[in-house]
Amino acid sequence: MTAEIIAVGSELLTPSRMDTNSLFLTLKLNELGIDVVRKTIIGDDRERLADEIRQARGSSPIVIMTGGIGPTMDDVSREAASDALGRELKYHPEITEAIAVRVSRLGLRKMAEINKRQAYVLEGAEVLPNANGTAPGQWFEDETGVLMLLPGPPREIEPLFEMQCLPRLRKREIPYQFYTVSLRVAGLPESELDERIAPIYTAESRVATTILASPGEIQIHMRAHAATTKQARAIAEALSRKVEDELGSNVFTHRDESLEAALMRHCLDRKLTLAVAESCTGGMIAQKITAVPGSSNFFRGGMVTYSNDAKSQWLGVSEATLERHGAVSKETAAEMAQGVRTRLDASLGVATTGLAGPGGGTSETPVGTVFIGVADEQSAEVKGMTVGGERDRVRLWATHRALDMVRRRVLSRQ
Amino acid sequence: MTAEIIAVGSELLTPSRMDTNSLFLTLKLNELGIDVVRKTIIGDDRERLADEIRQARGSSPIVIMTGGIGPTMDDVSREAASDALGRELKYHPEITEAIAVRVSRLGLRKMAEINKRQAYVLEGAEVLPNANGTAPGQWFEDETGVLMLLPGPPREIEPLFEMQCLPRLRKREIPYQFYTVSLRVAGLPESELDERIAPIYTAESRVATTILASPGEIQIHMRAHAATTKQARAIAEALSRKVEDELGSNVFTHRDESLEAALMRHCLDRKLTLAVAESCTGGMIAQKITAVPGSSNFFRGGMVTYSNDAKSQWLGVSEATLERHGAVSKETAAEMAQGVRTRLDASLGVATTGLAGPGGGTSETPVGTVFIGVADEQSAEVKGMTVGGERDRVRLWATHRALDMVRRRVLSRQ
Repeated sequence: MTAEIIAVGSELLTPSRMDTNSLFLTLKLNELGIDVVRKTIIGDDRERLADEIRQARGSSPIVIMTGGIGPTMDDVSREAASDALGRELKYHPEITEAIAVRVSRLGLRKMAEINKRQAYVLEGAEVLPNANGTAPGQWFEDETGVLMLLPGPPREIEPLFEMQCLPRLRKREIPYQFYTVSLRVAGLPESELDERIAPIYTAESRVATTILASPGEIQIHMRAHAATTKQARAIAEALSRKVEDELGSNVFTHRDESLEAALMRHCLDRKLTLAVAESCTGGMIAQKITAVPGSSNFFRGGMVTYSNDAKSQWLGVSEATLERHGAVSKETAAEMAQGVRTRLDASLGVATTGLAGPGGGTSETPVGTVFIGVADEQSAEVKGMTVGGERDRVRLWATHRALDMVRRRVLSRQ
Repeated sequence: MTAEIIAVGSELLTPSRMDTNSLFLTLKLNELGIDVVRKTIIGDDRERLADEIRQARGSSPIVIMTGGIGPTMDDVSREAASDALGRELKYHPEITEAIAVRVSRLGLRKMAEINKRQAYVLEGAEVLPNANGTAPGQWFEDETGVLMLLPGPPREIEPLFEMQCLPRLRKREIPYQFYTVSLRVAGLPESELDERIAPIYTAESRVATTILASPGEIQIHMRAHAATTKQARAIAEALSRKVEDELGSNVFTHRDESLEAALMRHCLDRKLTLAVAESCTGGMIAQKITAVPGSSNFFRGGMVTYSNDAKSQWLGVSEATLERHGAVSKETAAEMAQGVRTRLDASLGVATTGLAGPGGGTSETPVGTVFIGVADEQSAEVKGMTVGGERDRVRLWATHRALDMVRRRVLSRQ
C-alpha cells in the first residue's frame, strides 16, 4: 500500500524552512507497512492545491495533507480539498464552541471571529479533535481512498496522528510488512562496489536495495517486504549476509554507527590507544573521533601541524626528510605517524599530509595529493592518493581514508 | 517567473533523509527573482518521474531535477526525462573518456563499465561539466521551458549550479527583482536579538526578513523586491544599515563568509597569527579554521589535549593548577591559551576546556560547563559558561564562542 504526503505552506518554499512533519509521518506509515512514494511541498494556493490532491488521489490510496488549516485567510487547504473532491464544506457550530472554550481556558479575552473558519468540515468527513491547537483535523474516506487534512505544527500533528489516524489506519488491511538492514562500507569506490554486489541484490526481488555514497563511505540499505515482519527480517538479513560475504572487511559495520565509532569499538576491545597528527585534514580526524562519547578512553590526543617547524619540533620529523622529500611526501607521513605515536605514548599513530588546495599545487605535487601514514610499535605504512574535488572534499576523503586505514590495521593485528 | 524542483531518490522518502539541495537552489533562484512554487520528492521510479516532469513543465517554465543521474541501475532520471520529452538519449563517448581520466587520476584501477550510463545525453541538451563527480548535468531548453538534470550530492550540485546554470538563467528576462542582504551575528541570544531589531524590520514592508539561529551564530536575511534590482538593493541595504547600527560589533560580517573566515581576514589585516589548544572541542576549532583556503598564512597549528599529561607536557599547564582547580577550570583555560601561544610562537592563543558529556558531570562541574581562554602578549582572559544540549551542540557552541572571542579581541587591540 502506498501513501503520498502534501505539505502546505508558502514558508516551506523559502530557502530557510523545510517540511519535517513528513519524516515523522513516514516513520509511522512504514511501521504499518505503508510506503511513501511521493512528497510534495506547495504554497497556500487553492488552485494548485486542488490539482495536487486530485493527482495524489489518482496514484495512491492514502493522501495526507499537512498545514493550511489554520484560521487566517491564507489557509486554504479546506477549500482546495472541497474543490478537488466536489464536496461542500459544512459549518459545524460545535467546533466553534470547542474553540471558544479552549480560548477562554487559555485566558485570552475572546475568540477572534476569524477562528470560525476552522469549523468548516468536508461533507462526509470525520472531525479529528486537536488536543494542542484550535484547528481540528479531518478524515475523509471514499472508494478512491483516504484523504487526511492535518495541522502543520509538529506539536499538534504528532499526537493527533498517533491518537486519531493510526487506529483508523490499523483497521485497514495492509498486504505487506517491511524490514530494513543497512551495511556501511569504507575504502571501496561506489562503481566497483556496485559491480560486485549488483548480481547479488538484483537477484532478490523482495528487497529494495539503495546505495548511498559520500566521500570515503558508502551505505547499503536493504529493505525487504513480506506478509509478516518476521519474514521480512529473515529475507533482509539473508541478503545482507550474502552482500557482506562478497565485500568482506570493506564493510565496517552493520550497526547504526559511524566509521570513527566502529574504530573506537575495535580499539577498546583490544585495549589499543590512538594519537593523530594532521596537516591537510587540519583537525578533522581528531574532531570526528572526539565527537564519539567515551572517546577519551582510547584517544590520546592530536596535533595540527601546519608548518615544517611544527612537524620537526613537535613530531620529530627529521629536517633531512623535509628537505629531501618535502612536507607532502610518503616519508614525512611515516615520520609524523611514528612521531605522534611515541610522543603521545599511544599504541597507534595516524598522520595526514597533503595539498587540499585550492592554491599551492605543482606538476609534481598537484592539488589533491594526500599521504596517509599509520604506525604501530612495529612499523609505519603509508598510502598516497590523489583526491579530486574541492578543499572540503579532499579533507573529508582523507579523513575517512585515514580512519579506515587505522581500522584495517587494528583488525589485522594478531 | 516560477520554478519547480524535483528531488529524486528513494532514500529521500525514508524517515531519516531529507532533500536539502532545494534550500540552496531556492536561495539562488530567489536572488534572481525566480519563485519556487512547488517541490516534489520522488523515488527512483521511471514512470512516476516521467509523469512528474510532464506535470511540472505544464505549470512552470523552469524545472530542476536533482539526483538519479549516477552510474547505478537504480538511477533512472535520464530515462524518465527522455520519456517525458519524447527525446532520445544519445551516447557521448567524450563523457566516458572524461570519466576514465578522472578515475585514473583518483588512482583507481580502472573505470567500471557501469560508468558509461552517465554518458547518455538527451537529444538537444547541453552537457554541464561536473567538477566534483563523474555524472555531468544536462540543460534542456525548448519553447515549453527549461529542464535541468543535476547531480544529487550537495558538493557536486552547488558548484555546478553556480558555474553552469546561474549564468544561463541570468540571460532570461525576469519581471520583478529581488535583492537579498544578509548579516551574520555571534555572541547574542536569538530572543534578545529579535527584541532589539523587530521594531526596525517590521517597519519595512517591502522586505521579507528571516532570522535563522544555529548554535553560536544567527543569520539575518533581508529580501527586498522592487521593479529593478537596483531599487531592491537600495531598499535591502538601507534596512541592513539600520539593523547593523543597532547590533554593532555583534555583527561579524555582511559578506557570505563564516565566522572563521571573518576572523582570518581581521588577523591577516593586522598581521596576527593564531594557535589553538583544544580539550572539549577536540579539534573542531582547528578544523573550522583550516577549512578556509589560505588559513596557513595565519594559523600556526593546534593541539588536541585530552589528558592532564598532555596539558602539562605540551602546553606547560602547571601541575599545581591542574591539582588545585582541575582540568575544567578558568585557570587551566588561561594557562592552556598562553601555553599554546608561546610554544607555537603565535600572536594569539585560544583554548577550550569543558565537559561535553554525556557522562562525567558533577554537581560542581555539570555537563555543559565550558571555559574558553584567549591570550595575547599582554594577558589572558577567560569566559566560563554552561551550554545546554547534547555533546555535539556543546562542542559546536564552544567552538563558535571561542572563534568569536578571538575576533573581538583582535578588533579591540590598538
